[in-house]
Amino acid sequence: MQPFDVHILGCGSALPTRRHMPSCQVVNLRGKLLMLDCGEGAQLSWRHTGLNWQNITHILISHAHGDHVFGLPGLVSTMGLLGRTAPLYVHGPASLHAFIDCVLHDFCRDLSYELRFQPVDTTAHQLLFEDRSMEVWTLPLRHRVPCCGYLIKEKPGLPHIRREMIDFYEVPVWAINRIKAGDDWTAPDGTVVPHQRLTTPPDPVRSYAYCSDTMAFAELAPWIQGADLLYHEATYASSEGALAEKYGHSTALQAATIAHAAGVKRLLLGHFSSRYDDEDILLNEAKAAFPYTSLAREGLCIHL
Amino acid sequence: MQPFDVHILGCGSALPTRRHMPSCQVVNLRGKLLMLDCGEGAQLSWRHTGLNWQNITHILISHAHGDHVFGLPGLVSTMGLLGRTAPLYVHGPASLHAFIDCVLHDFCRDLSYELRFQPVDTTAHQLLFEDRSMEVWTLPLRHRVPCCGYLIKEKPGLPHIRREMIDFYEVPVWAINRIKAGDDWTAPDGTVVPHQRLTTPPDPVRSYAYCSDTMAFAELAPWIQGADLLYHEATYASSEGALAEKYGHSTALQAATIAHAAGVKRLLLGHFSSRYDDEDILLNEAKAAFPYTSLAREGLCIHL
Repeated sequence: MQPFDVHILGCGSALPTRRHMPSCQVVNLRGKLLMLDCGEGAQLSWRHTGLNWQNITHILISHAHGDHVFGLPGLVSTMGLLGRTAPLYVHGPASLHAFIDCVLHDFCRDLSYELRFQPVDTTAHQLLFEDRSMEVWTLPLRHRVPCCGYLIKEKPGLPHIRREMIDFYEVPVWAINRIKAGDDWTAPDGTVVPHQRLTTPPDPVRSYAYCSDTMAFAELAPWIQGADLLYHEATYASSEGALAEKYGHSTALQAATIAHAAGVKRLLLGHFSSRYDDEDILLNEAKAAFPYTSLAREGLCIHL
Repeated sequence: MQPFDVHILGCGSALPTRRHMPSCQVVNLRGKLLMLDCGEGAQLSWRHTGLNWQNITHILISHAHGDHVFGLPGLVSTMGLLGRTAPLYVHGPASLHAFIDCVLHDFCRDLSYELRFQPVDTTAHQLLFEDRSMEVWTLPLRHRVPCCGYLIKEKPGLPHIRREMIDFYEVPVWAINRIKAGDDWTAPDGTVVPHQRLTTPPDPVRSYAYCSDTMAFAELAPWIQGADLLYHEATYASSEGALAEKYGHSTALQAATIAHAAGVKRLLLGHFSSRYDDEDILLNEAKAAFPYTSLAREGLCIHL
C-alpha cells in the first residue's frame, strides 16, 4: 500500500514542558507532505522525521494561537535558505495574514519561492482543495477564536494487476496502464478480456481527521464518520471539565465519546495540558468510552 | 562570589541541525537574568536551565535575522501565560519593532505585563543601561544587516568584612553595612578604626563580551580588552574564509586572533555552520592562535 502516515512532531499545549513540543504534525500521503499546525520548534523536530523539506506542499493551520503558529517563521525561512522553488500553500484563519506578511517582509525579502496564504472559512465544512491523491476538507471547530480542523481523505487508487492473468493472456507491458485505467484487453485473435478479469480492486481509501483545538460537540461526528484515525485534542481529564468548557477545550472522555459516535477506527489523544506529568489518566478515561485509543507522543508515526 | 554565569541555550547558525539550536544565551549576574538573542526554541531549552522565567529583566537582540529572533514570540507569550507582571525590556535594532508589534497585536492582546522595546544604535560603542550590579555596553559589529554585540560588565561589589577584626573591636551588627559602604568605625571610647582595617577589598569585577554575528575586525579588540570571557562567532573554518567574508561571518582563527589582541581570559566559539558534524576543526584552528579556547554547546554553563 502507498504510504498514508501521520508523524507527530508536537502534541503539547500552550505552556512548554520538558516532555512535549507544541502542536505540529506531518501527514505523508503517497509521498506528498501536509503539515498540520506549526508550533515553535517544528523545523527542529522535522530533522528527526527523515522526511524531505521540499515535499511539503501545504501547511494547514487550525487557529491563530501561538502554540500552533510560532514555528512558521523559522520553517518558511529555512525552506528559503535550502533553495525551495515550488510554491508553498499556507491555509488558516484570515487573522494569520498580517503575521505572515510581517515575517515575509521583515525576514524573508529574498525568499526563493512563493508563499501563498489562503484564508480558510472556519465556519463551513467544505472541500478546501484536492489533487489526484487526496481531498482536504475543513472541519469547523469550536474554540475561543476562529478555528478549523482538517479531514484528509485519500482518493481511490488504481486497481491492482493480476499478474497470473496478464501472463496467461500474454498482455504486453504497454497495455497495463490502460487496463488499470479501465480499458478491456483485446487479444491479437480478437478475444476481448474484460479489465475486471485482469485486475483486483484498488486498496480501500483511508482518511484522517485532525481536530485541535476544540470543545467537544456532537455535530462533529457525522463529518468524520468512519475515519481510519481521529486526532482529537484532550487537554484535560474529566476532573477539569469546567476548565475545558471555560477555555474551549475537551476532556479525554469527551474526545472518546465523539470517536465512538463517529465510528472511527482509532483515536489519538493530544494537546495535553502541562499539568500532567503522565497522561495515563487521560488514556484510561478515554478508553472507558472508546477502547481503540492511544496517546500521541513526539516521534510517533502512525501508518494508516 | 556572587554568580556571573553564562548559559548556552543555542549556538548553531541559521540552518537547523540535529546537534544545535539557534542562537540564545542567558547570563545570570547576581540573580538577574539577561537573555542574549532568542532563536527558535529558546523557551523550550529554557526549561532545562532550572532558571526562573520571572527573573529575566532584559532581552538583548543582536540583529534581525530569524535565527536570533524567532524564539521571541513564544517566550513573550509564555511569560504572559505564567502571569508575569514586571516590565520586560527588549533591546535590538530598530527594524525589530514592527515584528514585535505584530506579535503583540496578533497573539498577545491580553499580555499581563508590559513589553518595552528599546531600539539600539548599532553604530556606536556606548552604555546601553546600568543598574546596581552591572553596566551593559553596545559593541557595533559588522554583518550584512545592522548588528550589535553586548558587553556585560559587573560593577564593583562591597568590600568583605574581616570577621576577626569585627570581633576584636566588638563592632555591633547595625554598623556593618555602613562600614562596608566606606564609613570608619568610632568605638565607644572614641577610637576611630579606618574601614580599610575592618574589610578586605571587594571581588574583582568580571565582564562578558557577546559578539555574534560579525566578520572579524581589529577595532573590536580595545572595546573588550581583558574580558573574562569572549563569545565570538566562528561560523567557518579557515578553508571557508571566502564564505565568511561574503556573508559577514568569521573563521575560528579570526575569532582567536581577536581574542588574543584583546587579551581576554577565555574564548568561547559558537554560531557554527551546519556543515560541520564535528567542530573540532574550528577548535584546533582557533587554539593555534589562542590556547584558552573552547567550543560552545547546548546546556553548557560557564561560571566567571
